[in-house]
Amino acid sequence: MLEYVSVLIMIVLHPSIILTMDQQRRVLRDYFIGIEEGVIKYLGKEKPTDAEEVLELPNRIIIPGFVDSHTHVAMTLLRGLKDDADLMEWLQKYILPMEMRLKSSDVYYGALYGIAEMLCSGITMFLDMYYHEIEIAKAVADAGVRAMLSYGSADVFFNRSPDEEFKIAENFRTELENLAKTRNAEDRLFFAYGPHSPYGCTKELLEIFKEKSKETGYRIHIHLAETLAEVQQVKENTGYTPIEYLESIGFLNEKVMAAHVVWVEEKEFDILKRRRVNVLHNPISNLKLASGIAPVPRMLAEGINVALATDGPASNNRLDMFREMHVAAIIHKGYNRDPKIVPAHTVLEMATINGANALGLDKMIGSIEVGKKADLVVINIHKGPHGTPIHDPYAMIVYALDQSYVESVMVDGKWVYKDGEYANIDIDKIREKVQEIRLRLMEEAGIT
Amino acid sequence: MLEYVSVLIMIVLHPSIILTMDQQRRVLRDYFIGIEEGVIKYLGKEKPTDAEEVLELPNRIIIPGFVDSHTHVAMTLLRGLKDDADLMEWLQKYILPMEMRLKSSDVYYGALYGIAEMLCSGITMFLDMYYHEIEIAKAVADAGVRAMLSYGSADVFFNRSPDEEFKIAENFRTELENLAKTRNAEDRLFFAYGPHSPYGCTKELLEIFKEKSKETGYRIHIHLAETLAEVQQVKENTGYTPIEYLESIGFLNEKVMAAHVVWVEEKEFDILKRRRVNVLHNPISNLKLASGIAPVPRMLAEGINVALATDGPASNNRLDMFREMHVAAIIHKGYNRDPKIVPAHTVLEMATINGANALGLDKMIGSIEVGKKADLVVINIHKGPHGTPIHDPYAMIVYALDQSYVESVMVDGKWVYKDGEYANIDIDKIREKVQEIRLRLMEEAGIT
Repeated sequence: MLEYVSVLIMIVLHPSIILTMDQQRRVLRDYFIGIEEGVIKYLGKEKPTDAEEVLELPNRIIIPGFVDSHTHVAMTLLRGLKDDADLMEWLQKYILPMEMRLKSSDVYYGALYGIAEMLCSGITMFLDMYYHEIEIAKAVADAGVRAMLSYGSADVFFNRSPDEEFKIAENFRTELENLAKTRNAEDRLFFAYGPHSPYGCTKELLEIFKEKSKETGYRIHIHLAETLAEVQQVKENTGYTPIEYLESIGFLNEKVMAAHVVWVEEKEFDILKRRRVNVLHNPISNLKLASGIAPVPRMLAEGINVALATDGPASNNRLDMFREMHVAAIIHKGYNRDPKIVPAHTVLEMATINGANALGLDKMIGSIEVGKKADLVVINIHKGPHGTPIHDPYAMIVYALDQSYVESVMVDGKWVYKDGEYANIDIDKIREKVQEIRLRLMEEAGIT
Repeated sequence: MLEYVSVLIMIVLHPSIILTMDQQRRVLRDYFIGIEEGVIKYLGKEKPTDAEEVLELPNRIIIPGFVDSHTHVAMTLLRGLKDDADLMEWLQKYILPMEMRLKSSDVYYGALYGIAEMLCSGITMFLDMYYHEIEIAKAVADAGVRAMLSYGSADVFFNRSPDEEFKIAENFRTELENLAKTRNAEDRLFFAYGPHSPYGCTKELLEIFKEKSKETGYRIHIHLAETLAEVQQVKENTGYTPIEYLESIGFLNEKVMAAHVVWVEEKEFDILKRRRVNVLHNPISNLKLASGIAPVPRMLAEGINVALATDGPASNNRLDMFREMHVAAIIHKGYNRDPKIVPAHTVLEMATINGANALGLDKMIGSIEVGKKADLVVINIHKGPHGTPIHDPYAMIVYALDQSYVESVMVDGKWVYKDGEYANIDIDKIREKVQEIRLRLMEEAGIT
């Protein structure tokens, strides 16, 4: 458990390069970063005079912590359960029978393991949707990272009334806010509503979330237009495509964080743009599950905020923003036959500041600026051979490096992963737990 | 320099799982591999009685060394020079002005660095095409890996007569074969003809290679149908598409190793199949340079041999078969909207045995079988968090792991990379050399 100390201690880092991802997208060479009480207090060419200790970091690039803007972190438990399968077979014969049998403590261990995986690829903040979500909050509190958590509300799937289903989400909110207070983690644990999708929720439930979000200011996390099957189903049920349907009930606005958004009709780009919907792009999951290829270049050109996300270890099968960035950078080029679109610096924006924007936390995280939280990733470009020769650091990170170049990760001014070691996670113990849980679930579900 | 010892010493490895990639694609659990004089001599459940030493490898998977079936290994020197650019701008303003200034020793260091990168991702054999190719042969001999090397013949580009251009290739062959003898590396260094492409060579030169290949039995390495621009250019020049054109001059047969093959017309699948052309698939390069998406599922369904390749660090920007396998596994699913195509085990075939087939070396490498060379990759699934829970080892390798899980690599029965250390490469020295060469080339070429 992490405790704040009241004495001011300035930690000073001195890397070769800082990719700030600030408004001017400054690339700072040979700068010092000074950190006090979890916040970036200094950024300059001169060594700060009140530095207690300076950590010299030659051949290191420091970037803001990645924001994984849509995931199901506890699904580490289900990783690799059945790959190369039809979506419905995968869901109904493998994933759901296992998920039905999840206990609270399973979700805690699955989430803690997922967070360990996130940290070694530099993810410091994530947006999650799942069940037993309070267990994920506990794992976040324990590991020392940040997350915005949503309970996956789906009255259609669970055959509950809209009011009952909403009440579960509200109960989770209360529990989460209490936990955040108790654990002194109010800057690390955030709540969002999580209506699963336009087909998992009734119109009544969607409307409750819409109204409540307006009242309370909480954001809304939803799956939207992920597959053609979804488009067809929503059309049959409502007469509208998924995006049009949500627009028709006044659901869409700048608080909506919509995952996937693969199937967008011409007229819908304007809806997304006008309503300032945040799009959470999951290129690996969309390819692997054969959902399709989201029209990201067009959305970016329209000025829509597009953030990057992993979708979790069951459909991916990793929680790795380096791999996600790489695929995001190459897929749209090849598909649209334009080698200049979705360039490296845009991809790094999608993985950092755009994620912070999507979550409404851009004043707090997403870039390296004085006054923002010290959520930092130290990349050692000499860790392996891929970081030489060095030229454009954005392109190096996106096209040449991978997660294994992440040396250390700081959240809230504290090293949560340092030189390959976790500060708050006993990785060997948790690995064993995860393997045990997996075997138990498979046995219970009769899966071989 | 590696020397063979004449005393028989049996090295015995005892991993948790062996993915043999043999004809039956056997997955062996708790088996021993015995190695003598560079060759796999034993594969069985019992510990061999004449074992001098057994290396216990719990939580390790052993797979055959990867075959990178099309690359330009020395282009590590040009990595990240200009990304996110139009192909012609990239080639003419950046790549060619640098390549014009390459010295022999530059190519040696670039290749040695590239081989270091290959080894840490488990590549033990590659097919190369470049200039100063004898320097690459020296790097291969020094590093202790295997390669098939071709000089990139292109009378059109270099404005030489077909005979002159062929003579350069022949001279390289003589040099290479002498070097292989001198270095006792005749099982590690192989020659192939390397007519660059249907647009880089005159018809006369292509016909010379065709005839000589029939005479000598050497294979032919060529770029084919990589971009739409190539298709248009060849059509304008010859009236044929690139594949039809080569067919029209009787060029295509089972000795042809054709890189890319992105643009295939309906009638051309039958040509590729009937002529038993080997296709070398470079998914990352094809996406990044916006060449397109090769019709791999269709080619596989037709029974065409498709091998996997990196295309080198300038266009990729890595020499990493894990990343290549991952992209190959997901891109065709998403593009064709079928989650079952190009499954994990097929991708591992493309990266190992299909590569050996393409190079005509399937009797020697590409699978783990008694009688084959001991070219092995040891994967430590507990190196990081991504290898848990374990289920299908093929899917784990392709979807969840990455190059950082490669612990050790054996070529010809010798550890060339062991526990993250190179046996024959001083990586820090070579890294410095590469950085120096890059800066010199940029200065000479006036690139900032």
